[in-house]
Amino acid sequence: MDITKPTLFVDLDRCRANIRRMAEKARKNKLVFRPHFKTHQSAAIGELFRAEGVEQITVSSISMAKYFAAAGWNDITVAFPTNVWEIEDIKELASKIKLNLTIESLIVAEELATSLEHEVGIYIKVDCGYGRTGIRWEELEGIGNLAMLIREAPNLNFHGLLTHAGHSYNAKSPEAVLRIHKEYLEHMQDLKDNLKEEFPDLHISIGDTPTCSIADEFGCATEMRPGNFVFYDIWQHRLGACQLQDIAVALAVPVVSTHIERSQLVVYGGAVHLSKDHYLEGGGKIFGWVCEPNERGWGEPLTGIKLVAVSQEHGVIKGNWDWIRMKKPGDLLYILPVHSCLTANLMGAYKDLDGETIEVQRAI
Amino acid sequence: MDITKPTLFVDLDRCRANIRRMAEKARKNKLVFRPHFKTHQSAAIGELFRAEGVEQITVSSISMAKYFAAAGWNDITVAFPTNVWEIEDIKELASKIKLNLTIESLIVAEELATSLEHEVGIYIKVDCGYGRTGIRWEELEGIGNLAMLIREAPNLNFHGLLTHAGHSYNAKSPEAVLRIHKEYLEHMQDLKDNLKEEFPDLHISIGDTPTCSIADEFGCATEMRPGNFVFYDIWQHRLGACQLQDIAVALAVPVVSTHIERSQLVVYGGAVHLSKDHYLEGGGKIFGWVCEPNERGWGEPLTGIKLVAVSQEHGVIKGNWDWIRMKKPGDLLYILPVHSCLTANLMGAYKDLDGETIEVQRAI
Repeated sequence: MDITKPTLFVDLDRCRANIRRMAEKARKNKLVFRPHFKTHQSAAIGELFRAEGVEQITVSSISMAKYFAAAGWNDITVAFPTNVWEIEDIKELASKIKLNLTIESLIVAEELATSLEHEVGIYIKVDCGYGRTGIRWEELEGIGNLAMLIREAPNLNFHGLLTHAGHSYNAKSPEAVLRIHKEYLEHMQDLKDNLKEEFPDLHISIGDTPTCSIADEFGCATEMRPGNFVFYDIWQHRLGACQLQDIAVALAVPVVSTHIERSQLVVYGGAVHLSKDHYLEGGGKIFGWVCEPNERGWGEPLTGIKLVAVSQEHGVIKGNWDWIRMKKPGDLLYILPVHSCLTANLMGAYKDLDGETIEVQRAI
Repeated sequence: MDITKPTLFVDLDRCRANIRRMAEKARKNKLVFRPHFKTHQSAAIGELFRAEGVEQITVSSISMAKYFAAAGWNDITVAFPTNVWEIEDIKELASKIKLNLTIESLIVAEELATSLEHEVGIYIKVDCGYGRTGIRWEELEGIGNLAMLIREAPNLNFHGLLTHAGHSYNAKSPEAVLRIHKEYLEHMQDLKDNLKEEFPDLHISIGDTPTCSIADEFGCATEMRPGNFVFYDIWQHRLGACQLQDIAVALAVPVVSTHIERSQLVVYGGAVHLSKDHYLEGGGKIFGWVCEPNERGWGEPLTGIKLVAVSQEHGVIKGNWDWIRMKKPGDLLYILPVHSCLTANLMGAYKDLDGETIEVQRAI
């Protein structure tokens, strides 16, 4: 295996199993499966989805939509508030593929209505408690008025309501994730009921990896858009959204410095590779879990050994002295990332377990 | 100006002034000025240094050394513990340029001694209290023994001792930065005294932006290697290492969503653009300061308006309701980053204030 510096490895068998599991859950619940491709940003990983029958996808930027449209995807939802500065790219995409946009304001709806030359699908973004983007679910009248305006506008084809329960990432247990799931489905059901006279065939699009992984029932939802599940990560594992053996990415890092007296190693692998995302444990920050290489990829994470600090290129591993003292510069370790989306974006390049390069394009 | 999505702008006049100020300080103190190029990773920004007479540079990876060697830099120190997995690239670089490496272990020194075919300069990394890499400064005997071994090894040309007072980044005041500066210079002086019989012409290389910016005297040091100062950022400003008008980079971000009821805006500009680096204020995290555009670039940061959350593409701005309520989707703002090194690395592309693209290459 040709490793000389930090390298992100993807276990494609694990990816395939993660995709299959979620696709089956969608089928069982009669949901459109429209996976979010922002985690992997890779046309090659996209093909694994296609092999499972996926034809509709979600992205989080127009740049990403352009990349995947060029890779042959022709039904794409941009699940990010429409950025009117990109109107020329939007117009071009709309002329080529079935493009769905997300809006939450009258100003943007009007801008689109006056600019577009081809039809686009429109979802109204609803905030069911996350508090980031979207119209608050209680604003029944505001949501209804915007929906009606969209319906009347030329080239805007109103599809339905879209929500993202990002607050599930901060839940403390699988039960708490399920409570959030139940709650947002109730909110969406209320809206559906409220709008059913005017819009009897409203689509309800939901999607975050924690609730989609843990829940088995999806109430009024008609579509799911999880993304992170293709790779999963330590954050999802801690939430109870995946098993350790579902985590499909690990960063190979060379040991460059040993500090046995303080039970620490320094690896070449830091904030420019993994990001600074972390969770708190015992008053300290944890940036990743540590695994030994095995015959094909990496083994189970080591107990009591964690990545406790990162700076630009440095990562500091701390833990069990008996293990630390056996390590020397030139040894190789694998780090399971806390947040695989940010790690994948930073690396901008992956290898599979055979060492083959997997095509990817950062959509910055 | 052709902005459609998050774009990192560099004020080249501010860069030039930052470079000139530091170059003059080095000259005045008879220090070799060997700036760290990891912050900008740009051959074009490198030329601004060349215009100030700089001929020697520092980088933090072999990949970066290769990039800058190709851009005509032929005296490069890699201020990161030598990664023996990159020995082939090291050998090739050593055959072409004056390459200096940093080591802190016998194993790595031996590996280099048996592999190299051309001479490289060697610095021993000394830990003066930061606690990341390097041999602790108290280990007088260990440092002396390693120095002697290096001197005897074929193709290893022992230059001296190198330290990085990274703990200055966590100082709470300029006075605290100066205390750290005084302390590490004393430690380096002790080592110099201890080794002077064997090594009368020892180079002492120091360099972190806080101490190099704030201090006026450099004791036993013979070389300075600051990097961040070329752009500076909010972190440095809060430390007292720069003025607001020295900050030379800002991320232009479109407003995509307004939430006036909770005094918030959402901008297209998040963790994949700025990184998750932040500082704590009043129990919350601050990821950037917010400026309005002006006729050329950005104005002073707005009082009481901050970037308070980031996720993959989203940034949440919160503050003064009277200002927030005037904003609408499609407005443009500028964010001063908390940590310019990570922002620059994530963006991987800059524009100058005339909108011209500045060449840069992420060395991941």
